[in-house]
Order: sequence, then structure tokens, then C-alpha cells
Amino acid sequence: MKWLLVLMVTIVSTNHVMAQNQKVRLAKLVIDSTQLEAYHKLLKEEVEASIEKEPGVLTLYAVSEKEKPTHITILEIYANEEAYKIHIQTPHFLKYKNGTKAMVKELELIEATPLIPTMKIK
Amino acid sequence: MKWLLVLMVTIVSTNHVMAQNQKVRLAKLVIDSTQLEAYHKLLKEEVEASIEKEPGVLTLYAVSEKEKPTHITILEIYANEEAYKIHIQTPHFLKYKNGTKAMVKELELIEATPLIPTMKIK
Repeated sequence: MKWLLVLMVTIVSTNHVMAQNQKVRLAKLVIDSTQLEAYHKLLKEEVEASIEKEPGVLTLYAVSEKEKPTHITILEIYANEEAYKIHIQTPHFLKYKNGTKAMVKELELIEATPLIPTMKIK
Repeated sequence: MKWLLVLMVTIVSTNHVMAQNQKVRLAKLVIDSTQLEAYHKLLKEEVEASIEKEPGVLTLYAVSEKEKPTHITILEIYANEEAYKIHIQTPHFLKYKNGTKAMVKELELIEATPLIPTMKIK
């Protein structure tokens, strides 16, 4: 059974190393209130296409604040820097980026370090 | 095969309804820089215990800002309000809350609405 132990240790180590390479970011946006519905539609379309088509996009978890619905935060996790570079060249990302240009009043991109890089959502 | 379709629709609908009941929050904290390491240790312990022991805690995804390591954001997702109420009475949460009281300089709790409530982390 030693091979099984070696395999398990290898898998755990590999996951750990892969998680260490992740690019994690918080995107904070303020949207023009008159265009909020249209913005939601474009963001949802972009997020769904990214998750479906790009293995390196691990999550794009977007929330709006209940008391300030124009304030959006997106937790972005990419497998690595390369996956991010691929992402921003995809047709679905470019469609979102160009389509929402006039809707986004403020954009702040905050590079982040996860406390537990292997954390998931149940 | 009609029963299979009914079953699948039921499962999808149930997931959707369950996701609608989620409590989603952003916790934004500023930590005393001289106690940051001790804070990380207590937070990590609390997060790991919550994820392991509480089925209703769906994620506690904590990040620190690379340029301002004392600034922490936690994406908190609970299955519902009840799961949250249970969470804040657990020994591991109370240990964290009491143990970090003197370390937390600012705390802002922002109730949020997820764009896609079924979103996961790959």
C-alpha cells in the first residue's frame, strides 16, 4: 500500500503547489445606477461563459451590496497568471469590457493573498 | 424516462431555491499591524473549524490585500440565516471573536446579493 500513500501525498502536494500559483483579486466597481440592469446582464453573461469555457478561471464570485446596489465586488480566482492573460483576450471578456465601458463609473483592482488557497464553496 | 426528467428538474429547482435562501456577506477588517501574525493564526483556525464542523457554513474565503496586508476581506456564505445564527454561537467562533477583539481596529459587515447564487470555486 506504500504506492497509495505516495500517490495521495503527491496529489495533496500538487494541489498545494497549484493553489500557491493562483492569481487572486478583488475587483470593486461602482456602476451608473441608470444602467445597472444592463450591466448585470452583461456581467452574468461574461461570468457564465468564462466559467464554462476557461478551465483556468476558478471563480468569478460577484456580489452587489444590499444597501448600495450600484457597488459591486467580484472575487476573481485564476489558476495562475497565464490563465488570467488568456482570460482577458477571450471574445466573451472583450464583449463585456467594451460593452460596459460607459456603465462603470469607478473600478479598483486589488491584488490579494488568500488565507487558505485551497478554500472552496460547498 | 419521464421520472428521470422530473427528478432532474426537482434537483435543479431545489438547488436554486436553497441558493436563494443563502446569507452572503462581505466582512472588511483592518488589523493592528503588530498583531497580524497572531490574527491570521486565529482566523485560520476558526475558518477551518467552521468549514469542517458546520454544514451550513458554505465558505469563508478570506484574503489580505497585497499592498495593505492589514486589510482583510472575507466572503462569507451561509446556507441560510439559521446557519449563520448557529455559527456565531459555536465555541470556535466565540474563541476567534474574543481572541481577536483587541487586534481588530475596524470592522465593516456588508450584506450582499450574489449575482449567481450557485457559483462555486473550481
